[in-house]
Amino acid sequence: MDINLSDVQAELCGVFDAYEAALVSNDVATLDALFWASEHTVRYGTGENLIGIEAIRAFRNARSSQGLARVLSHTVITTFGRDFGTAMTEFVRPSYRQDGRLLRVGRQSQTWVRTAEPGHGGWRVVAAHVSLLDLPAD
Amino acid sequence: MDINLSDVQAELCGVFDAYEAALVSNDVATLDALFWASEHTVRYGTGENLIGIEAIRAFRNARSSQGLARVLSHTVITTFGRDFGTAMTEFVRPSYRQDGRLLRVGRQSQTWVRTAEPGHGGWRVVAAHVSLLDLPAD
Repeated sequence: MDINLSDVQAELCGVFDAYEAALVSNDVATLDALFWASEHTVRYGTGENLIGIEAIRAFRNARSSQGLARVLSHTVITTFGRDFGTAMTEFVRPSYRQDGRLLRVGRQSQTWVRTAEPGHGGWRVVAAHVSLLDLPAD
Repeated sequence: MDINLSDVQAELCGVFDAYEAALVSNDVATLDALFWASEHTVRYGTGENLIGIEAIRAFRNARSSQGLARVLSHTVITTFGRDFGTAMTEFVRPSYRQDGRLLRVGRQSQTWVRTAEPGHGGWRVVAAHVSLLDLPAD
């Protein structure tokens, strides 16, 4: 199996960037378009466990559009063959800092599959997990 | 792409079960055998972010073997074609309860790829994310 074919990885990085831009601007239509429209799609969030695209859509539509800006770090995007990939990243929002100290860091993991659906080269998130890691006070 | 081909899904469910058995018994050798031996492998845990198999191995070898028993629920295992899959599950450990009340629930997500490596049909975890979700008090 070909790992990180350069054209495939570049393509998935582009779709990942499109998802990130949609997330921080709360572009719900694009976020929805980039998730696999299936009962099998699962998204674990910082405050909820969602199984199936309908549950994910309901969450998106109810979500506040405030405070979504964030900075990514240690992003690892890996492709397997031409149709499968993972995107793992840490992220920090301004609210995660207090008096200059970083209180927590977010982690977002996504599994991407190239489907037969139109748009974005067919790439869709089929599973996602977002969580917060509290950092030690030391 | 064929979703959940019955023989492929059954195969991945078997490997998932083998991983779970190894986890609760702290069978580090099997856990290690089931993770992709690559610098690209990422594991976000409840208390750490690990990038690369060497970081993951160091964590496994230092981990306490106490209190690993758990009960899974809402497990969703989905396969894409013959060589890719995702395994999403919630879990509860006895320590997550206090006076009968469930304080939190764990979430574990894994991305599996069939590699050319020997054993377990070649299936390896290429990305994983484990986190805890605190439940509301009432």
